Amino acid sequence: MRDNLHLPFRPRNEVPVAPPQQQAALPRVVIVGGGFAGLWATRALARDDVRITLIDRRNHHLFQPLLYQVATAGLSAPDIAAPLRHILRGQRNVEVRLGEVAGIDAAAHSVTLNDGDALGFDYLVLASGAMHAYFGHDDWATHAPGLKTLDDALAIRRRLLLAFERAEAAETSEERAAWLNFAVVGGGPTGVELAGTLAEIARHTLRNEFRRIDPAEAKVRLLEAGPRVLPSFPESLSAKARAQLQRLGVEVVTGVPVDAIAADGYSLGGQAVQARTVIWAAGVAASPLGALLAAPRDRAGRVQVNADLSVPGHPGIFVAGDLASVQQDGRPVPGVAPAAKQMGAHVARVIRARLRSREGVAALAPAFRYRDFGNLATIGRMAAVVHFGRLRLSGLPAWWFWLLIHVFFLIGFRNRLIVLINWAWAYWSYQRHARIILGQDPAPPDRSSP
Amino acid sequence: MRDNLHLPFRPRNEVPVAPPQQQAALPRVVIVGGGFAGLWATRALARDDVRITLIDRRNHHLFQPLLYQVATAGLSAPDIAAPLRHILRGQRNVEVRLGEVAGIDAAAHSVTLNDGDALGFDYLVLASGAMHAYFGHDDWATHAPGLKTLDDALAIRRRLLLAFERAEAAETSEERAAWLNFAVVGGGPTGVELAGTLAEIARHTLRNEFRRIDPAEAKVRLLEAGPRVLPSFPESLSAKARAQLQRLGVEVVTGVPVDAIAADGYSLGGQAVQARTVIWAAGVAASPLGALLAAPRDRAGRVQVNADLSVPGHPGIFVAGDLASVQQDGRPVPGVAPAAKQMGAHVARVIRARLRSREGVAALAPAFRYRDFGNLATIGRMAAVVHFGRLRLSGLPAWWFWLLIHVFFLIGFRNRLIVLINWAWAYWSYQRHARIILGQDPAPPDRSSP
Repeated sequence: MRDNLHLPFRPRNEVPVAPPQQQAALPRVVIVGGGFAGLWATRALARDDVRITLIDRRNHHLFQPLLYQVATAGLSAPDIAAPLRHILRGQRNVEVRLGEVAGIDAAAHSVTLNDGDALGFDYLVLASGAMHAYFGHDDWATHAPGLKTLDDALAIRRRLLLAFERAEAAETSEERAAWLNFAVVGGGPTGVELAGTLAEIARHTLRNEFRRIDPAEAKVRLLEAGPRVLPSFPESLSAKARAQLQRLGVEVVTGVPVDAIAADGYSLGGQAVQARTVIWAAGVAASPLGALLAAPRDRAGRVQVNADLSVPGHPGIFVAGDLASVQQDGRPVPGVAPAAKQMGAHVARVIRARLRSREGVAALAPAFRYRDFGNLATIGRMAAVVHFGRLRLSGLPAWWFWLLIHVFFLIGFRNRLIVLINWAWAYWSYQRHARIILGQDPAPPDRSSP
Repeated sequence: MRDNLHLPFRPRNEVPVAPPQQQAALPRVVIVGGGFAGLWATRALARDDVRITLIDRRNHHLFQPLLYQVATAGLSAPDIAAPLRHILRGQRNVEVRLGEVAGIDAAAHSVTLNDGDALGFDYLVLASGAMHAYFGHDDWATHAPGLKTLDDALAIRRRLLLAFERAEAAETSEERAAWLNFAVVGGGPTGVELAGTLAEIARHTLRNEFRRIDPAEAKVRLLEAGPRVLPSFPESLSAKARAQLQRLGVEVVTGVPVDAIAADGYSLGGQAVQARTVIWAAGVAASPLGALLAAPRDRAGRVQVNADLSVPGHPGIFVAGDLASVQQDGRPVPGVAPAAKQMGAHVARVIRARLRSREGVAALAPAFRYRDFGNLATIGRMAAVVHFGRLRLSGLPAWWFWLLIHVFFLIGFRNRLIVLINWAWAYWSYQRHARIILGQDPAPPDRSSP
């Protein structure tokens, strides 16, 4: 092992957790990212003699699988998020730091934050996740926002709700039609969820609320360049999902790529379509922090890690979650929450094994294996698909299954209860309680020019 | 009466409510503002043969008395707001229009929106409320945000939560102390609520969550230039409120005006105080829309209306709510929710009387009288003051009274239930579920310069 593992500890702590002398001697683990991978790694090290610093740009852990519900006004932002400090308040070997990583010096075992602070580490876990990718069309980002953070969700909610307001105030039928044309690009789980829920909003939630438009006349299109929606599911379930989407009122277009996206519409296979609201659910790329490591990366920017999730040439640095590129049985491990949690827990086990071997106890650093418990996606009201081993469900049973799983895994008793009440309310009333437009200046563009 | 009351109706409506010929003949009422005054006026006209357009810059009615709970992370934004369209979906004589009023032509009976559209009216109700005022110190607005909208509340929440994060990351004890110094300017109900709740957050909610600071060491000061807090209450209750604030850990400073507010602190009676977080709850001014009427206004910009709330010289134009300056028994009617609701309902009665008298039925346009049912303010956990006629309560009984009244008046069954659950949760756990920092770039300022 390296001999510079214990860099001097600068005691800024006025509320010491353990006697400073003893604390300074503990190995330091820096974990970047409080998503599923980073948080699960942190929790798995709760009983180890380490000092952990968990760094995140946001103050909260986000339950990303329900993010589309915030974007479609079914849930409030705080319903699916919890402050990282609060989750970890009882774990005394962790400190949480709000900040952004600006640099990683692998040789000096140090991470620099964008406020200039440097944190030394013995072990580093990079779990900063993924972001949207526009496949070289970064100019599409303005017109077709993606969904990765709560701020993204609130911005999409704002756009969706404003579109109906603009349609109501439209002067011409062309303008009205353009505001009532919605497109979701990408037929993966997020795209399917967004399109299905949006169709439900137009057909049910907004019923009777407008006087000049009929929201049910809104056109919701789901655009998938590949041959079928939900490509990670068996073909039979893809077909069922497509049928359920169509029953909800979504027009599903597969096999044609989007060529262009602008403020007033998009182009599909050379055909221009007037549509003022386009949502991007098509591509993800790894967090740019992966590029701070001198390590091989795949086409999506994910770091190609060793079997134990360590970075080649840096046994003390690990990558977990969506930022890690892991092959298993010839296929990539998917970028889903269970895989991220398993990677986080695995990294904790490897770090523990390293600590033991430093203490002279022989401990094996095992290879990571993803245990695929199954795959599920919701489509809309009473519509979902579930693929768990030999179990294949669709429609109402799948929806109930999805609901129970998601509420069960949501962090915190209060959140679960509130989310269940909100769902029960939405189920019986067709209402979505968070239909509140936030953000400055929701006034429409000036139309007064002659 | 004027003979140009019925301007031609431009039928843009493709989903007509009544036969267009019949509808075009109905008197048009334009109501600006979906707060308590505007919404209550709209609802009171539900059974009248009028066509109402309700215009608001926001898509929601806001239950302003609980806005401080959103600012202090106890409630989510959607918990205290409901879309105006949804509230009014069953009232077929109303259309809701999202937009901002840019001009009022009283002679031509027309209102212009900022998208250029013009709406003709027979009756106009201006109920656009109030905003913060900095008494000629508009430069203070950046450093001491006020609380009037949900966006304001989310911005204050962000500041309060970030202050503790900055304190945790501070390099020096001076910097740490400046981040842990909070000041609320203004000892009215909003200031008292904010200061009391902020002290509770520092002492209880954040306990055990930080490693380098003790949040309970935060200093929360309530600054009131006048001789006592809650000046609209009897002196005995002001004294009780002060004692309750002090028990919660708030330092109450009365009788000294704030001279200056800057990014790093404020000056109080010539004494500079380092404090990075200052909240403004000191002054309100009327909405600038009042200035669009050629009518006398008081010092705060409120329109001085006739006894029936019509604007002098314009019998078809009314002002209601916080924008109206009404004297009663030698004292101004206060800018509180019950007064706004009563004014809104009163304007509806006057409009109805005018319609009857046009039809040849003699109907009296009565003078507005404010019925003061009482006054109540919350201070913090189990602390409040209540003044209802001869009833004077403080402490726990007042808090229960306040809680029941506020939840009872909150619009919508679902909101009430969710708010009650959130309160029950907060009560037993000391937790506040909405501690989520939203908004771009919560990263701290760069400190890396040598």
